[in-house]
Amino acid sequence: MTDKIIKIAIVGITGYGGLELLRLLYNHPNAKVVSIHNTQTENTDISEQFPHLKSMYNLTPTTFDPMHIMQEADLVFFATSSGVSKDLAQDFIQAKFPVIDLSGDFRLPADIYKKWYKNEPASDEAIQQAHYSLADFYDNKVTYIANPGCYATGTLLALAPLAQNHLLDKDNIIIDAKSGLSGAGKSLTLASHFVNVNENFTMYKANHHQHIPEITQQLQQWQSDIAHIQFTTSLLPINRGIFVSAYVKINDDSQAEKIQELYTATYANKQFVRVMPKNQLPSIKQVIGTNFTDIGLTYNPDTKYLTIVSVLDNMIKGAAGQAIQNMNHMFDLEESTGLHLIAQYA
Amino acid sequence: MTDKIIKIAIVGITGYGGLELLRLLYNHPNAKVVSIHNTQTENTDISEQFPHLKSMYNLTPTTFDPMHIMQEADLVFFATSSGVSKDLAQDFIQAKFPVIDLSGDFRLPADIYKKWYKNEPASDEAIQQAHYSLADFYDNKVTYIANPGCYATGTLLALAPLAQNHLLDKDNIIIDAKSGLSGAGKSLTLASHFVNVNENFTMYKANHHQHIPEITQQLQQWQSDIAHIQFTTSLLPINRGIFVSAYVKINDDSQAEKIQELYTATYANKQFVRVMPKNQLPSIKQVIGTNFTDIGLTYNPDTKYLTIVSVLDNMIKGAAGQAIQNMNHMFDLEESTGLHLIAQYA
Amino acid sequence: MTDKIIKIAIVGITGYGGLELLRLLYNHPNAKVVSIHNTQTENTDISEQFPHLKSMYNLTPTTFDPMHIMQEADLVFFATSSGVSKDLAQDFIQAKFPVIDLSGDFRLPADIYKKWYKNEPASDEAIQQAHYSLADFYDNKVTYIANPGCYATGTLLALAPLAQNHLLDKDNIIIDAKSGLSGAGKSLTLASHFVNVNENFTMYKANHHQHIPEITQQLQQWQSDIAHIQFTTSLLPINRGIFVSAYVKINDDSQAEKIQELYTATYANKQFVRVMPKNQLPSIKQVIGTNFTDIGLTYNPDTKYLTIVSVLDNMIKGAAGQAIQNMNHMFDLEESTGLHLIAQYA
Amino acid sequence: MTDKIIKIAIVGITGYGGLELLRLLYNHPNAKVVSIHNTQTENTDISEQFPHLKSMYNLTPTTFDPMHIMQEADLVFFATSSGVSKDLAQDFIQAKFPVIDLSGDFRLPADIYKKWYKNEPASDEAIQQAHYSLADFYDNKVTYIANPGCYATGTLLALAPLAQNHLLDKDNIIIDAKSGLSGAGKSLTLASHFVNVNENFTMYKANHHQHIPEITQQLQQWQSDIAHIQFTTSLLPINRGIFVSAYVKINDDSQAEKIQELYTATYANKQFVRVMPKNQLPSIKQVIGTNFTDIGLTYNPDTKYLTIVSVLDNMIKGAAGQAIQNMNHMFDLEESTGLHLIAQYA
Repeated sequence: MTDKIIKIAIVGITGYGGLELLRLLYNHPNAKVVSIHNTQTENTDISEQFPHLKSMYNLTPTTFDPMHIMQEADLVFFATSSGVSKDLAQDFIQAKFPVIDLSGDFRLPADIYKKWYKNEPASDEAIQQAHYSLADFYDNKVTYIANPGCYATGTLLALAPLAQNHLLDKDNIIIDAKSGLSGAGKSLTLASHFVNVNENFTMYKANHHQHIPEITQQLQQWQSDIAHIQFTTSLLPINRGIFVSAYVKINDDSQAEKIQELYTATYANKQFVRVMPKNQLPSIKQVIGTNFTDIGLTYNPDTKYLTIVSVLDNMIKGAAGQAIQNMNHMFDLEESTGLHLIAQYA
Repeated sequence: MTDKIIKIAIVGITGYGGLELLRLLYNHPNAKVVSIHNTQTENTDISEQFPHLKSMYNLTPTTFDPMHIMQEADLVFFATSSGVSKDLAQDFIQAKFPVIDLSGDFRLPADIYKKWYKNEPASDEAIQQAHYSLADFYDNKVTYIANPGCYATGTLLALAPLAQNHLLDKDNIIIDAKSGLSGAGKSLTLASHFVNVNENFTMYKANHHQHIPEITQQLQQWQSDIAHIQFTTSLLPINRGIFVSAYVKINDDSQAEKIQELYTATYANKQFVRVMPKNQLPSIKQVIGTNFTDIGLTYNPDTKYLTIVSVLDNMIKGAAGQAIQNMNHMFDLEESTGLHLIAQYA
Repeated sequence: MTDKIIKIAIVGITGYGGLELLRLLYNHPNAKVVSIHNTQTENTDISEQFPHLKSMYNLTPTTFDPMHIMQEADLVFFATSSGVSKDLAQDFIQAKFPVIDLSGDFRLPADIYKKWYKNEPASDEAIQQAHYSLADFYDNKVTYIANPGCYATGTLLALAPLAQNHLLDKDNIIIDAKSGLSGAGKSLTLASHFVNVNENFTMYKANHHQHIPEITQQLQQWQSDIAHIQFTTSLLPINRGIFVSAYVKINDDSQAEKIQELYTATYANKQFVRVMPKNQLPSIKQVIGTNFTDIGLTYNPDTKYLTIVSVLDNMIKGAAGQAIQNMNHMFDLEESTGLHLIAQYA
Repeated sequence: MTDKIIKIAIVGITGYGGLELLRLLYNHPNAKVVSIHNTQTENTDISEQFPHLKSMYNLTPTTFDPMHIMQEADLVFFATSSGVSKDLAQDFIQAKFPVIDLSGDFRLPADIYKKWYKNEPASDEAIQQAHYSLADFYDNKVTYIANPGCYATGTLLALAPLAQNHLLDKDNIIIDAKSGLSGAGKSLTLASHFVNVNENFTMYKANHHQHIPEITQQLQQWQSDIAHIQFTTSLLPINRGIFVSAYVKINDDSQAEKIQELYTATYANKQFVRVMPKNQLPSIKQVIGTNFTDIGLTYNPDTKYLTIVSVLDNMIKGAAGQAIQNMNHMFDLEESTGLHLIAQYA
């Protein structure tokens, strides 16, 4: 274990992502949160608003001042809503100061961002400084990391072994993805009111979820003929967790029986991806509270469809945990540092 | 309103299906439950075991005696587990006495039943007396009705307008179906323990659910080239409700824009199927406690996939409610008699 | 069954109470909703905003005009938030037109209302026209009925047999009451966000809930020495249901063994209150969806405390159902008309 | 940080308590699980049965052999059901080998155990070797620690400052305690079936819960006149968490306004008990996943009742976490070692 300490500033502290970073970094042996920043400044200790933090953190949000942050810290996490970091990150980009951005602002080319986020994008120049980093596949030392979205992480890890081997039938990639409510954030809407969510199940943004373009963009890097995916998202009446059901055909059906081996081989050295035994499918609970993505496969010879299930914790692997995994890469720490987490069984 | 009273015997009273029949029949103006029967006889009033029935029913299970039932009653409901009615129903079949069977014992040819239920089937002769009756499409006066399964009902109603017009691309019919726990019955297993279900989501019986053959059998009657469907089932952490997500391609893509009209037209005179406005998808809550199936559609021109969502209450439309709808047909009552149910909004 | 039809106007249609009235009145044989009214007028059919009502109701909210309502209807329900009916009901009070008010505006004397609701009260003169009507004990023909609050109903029915016989030790009446989220209404607050409610339990308004004064006021009518109750309320992570745990000492301990009989006798002719066998306590589920209050008792000879549990559905017995029970009384209908409801077991 | 490593054997590995010990000990810097033992031996790696442990533990249960355990390990945890350790622990007691017992077998004198557990007790001689150790108040070096029950921990910490100062009115100590389902263990009963728990709330074992005698026994050590408590327990439809609502009168009412200070002072140096600001009450969520007990108070001058709320995670503070806290004491480690846990906010 190295005794290096990374000094960290977090921008966007009152959302789920910022709070989860605080929680996970508490036990990271090589990280220390030195400042937290919020758009609406409150001059009170964070534990007053969030009693779960009492006696663990004594931190009060301070004014966001990039110059000051760059003097005091070694790394900035942006855990802000979309549309914030594209403006606030400018100074860091120019100074080539290390940033890990949990938002979607730097994941896509400007025109595609504009189309899917219905929002003004950052400049193409700024976006080109950023690197989309699916942490299990990229070990980046770049200074601006665009941390992948939660649905994108689950979908890409489910499809990576096939796409990397050009085995996907590009016309039949069907993803039925489900997420717990924390994925939708803290905003107060009818859609997040307890009575509307509990004992219910709702599909939303069918064919329009903003994670679609980052998935296709990454898939194309692996298998260039992929243009579109059939992708729907639904809300599960649970707090945390993503369950991706992927139904795909493979280009070379003779390979069907070897797919399990392909997955096992692809992830043999990826410590945060666990492949289930053949025909066993993971459930959400086995990864909640952890940085794992668990994947299972089953093939149907009658329909020629392969069912792939991947599960992850949207707040950890889908946000703060993967961001720390990327931080570990960036600072040459063992990638699991601070992420030795086991799911609660009960 | 007719003043006819149908005298009813229910076999299998302590399962969810039997209890739901009791509940719904209480307010049916033309039905009266005259006897209840159980495999393990308990000689106590049913409200002792089930306090929610107190002051509503004074009924004690009596010995199952087909001759006696045929003397006292006009109709028998079997709400038994699979493998029970195939034996117990024999006398009624021979006597051509009216039966509505909520179990799977008479839905399939003997060889197919044996393959999917891993159980000895009824005789082919007996099975031929039964009629599989999706109540919104068949108005049966036959004496033995095999009431459809819950997943089958949701899937068939989602696909009927396309299959009936031979519009389904037979090679790409993908169904991702989800159900609340009551669909799995009262048996005590790890899979139904609260701690395993709550805050979890689990796929089970992928490609092996016993409702698959009754779906394909019915689809084939509408569109003869359909041989297989890609069908998975998952457990939602809720008590009631089925959500069917169907992803299909249509044979004649030029028809894509007319599909909404096709659904509206197909169900215009079906009072228990409600088609949502274009691109609006139903959520489970809007049908819980009712006999409705609500259906919504959205088409993706990039992938050529049509997403169809259907929702229903698995205990009502997927079991006891559809059985009563079938009873109303059988006895020439208006089909909605006793089924004027509105979902709880909160 | 009479063939009289009561024409009904509902004011406050988009809250949970108004929607529940619509749902229950649909199956009431002697009632017909002729108009609905809302503070913010929307000129669209109610089923567009609330798809669960599709094909059941064709109603569009119209402007609130008391004169017009009195011409068209026989009865007005106010299902408005507190602070609304005290102004809007004035014309009906002056005309002595029948009103059933589900809100708290006319339950308390003006000064007490002001203290507990922190809001301007109606005039004492208007308040004196209203009658607080716990439907199981009052069979009112008065024209303005103040329908009791949900917690108050559960607590009063739990204590009535003791208070009516002056058996309560006035210094030790402890109520720990819990409610599902629908009791807190539709407003969007952090406290109703799914992630905050799910997997959580929170006590709120300890000693300050606005139902406290209506409970003590009613108890005093039965047992005049009761001045205060120890009363706390908590939120259960469920949609519906109230569970009242009352811990009381009785004045005459020699009576302890006769309390069960006292409850049985008190409620022998109350069809909507069911007393459990001795030492059996009801659970919430057995009354959800019904107008029942179920009550159970157990006495602890070591501590001299009697534990009384009462359960009810806060939207039905605690709001719309009791209002209809009061309507039935007001219009000389059998009190259970339209309220023959059995709980869902699964 | 010391570099000592405590070698640990766990008996009873497949219950919730054993699995939680495995989870928490994984990140304990001074502990290593060297063997696991089960009553029904399965010769397969534990991660096959429990996929959440995959890649974290490679352990296979081995035969329970006390002599072998004493050679290989430094400490045994019993995470067995009641009635097991009273027999299996004999050899360790005779050898004065360190044991921490999460079960109830050694918490009570033999006659009281027999009365409340309806089970044969251990011998009085053996029981006298054990020490009941509420970890926040006892820093034990004894060799056999009886780890407190989950409800007992929450209740005792809620009442300790009052009892230690003889301030409790002994005749009016009312506890309404609620627990999530994991507190009831893994056994498959109707009471733990998802459909019975979800959207429900049930009181059970009113006045008969087996934690009552360990609470009164401990309270008596602090305030000798306490003979009985009024204690009920209910099941919350959540996985984890205990919420204790205590309603008490204090002997010297003039002290009422100083109670908040008394609590703050009592727990000033207890790092795992956090007292909320005056009149603020904790909710369950703020301690789930941690070893904290959070406590809040509010006094009602009208009724003279003080409401005390305490919350804890029944699997951690109420079982495995407190056991590790006791282990840290036993082995002279800083008491929070391995227990730096922050609750998930979302």
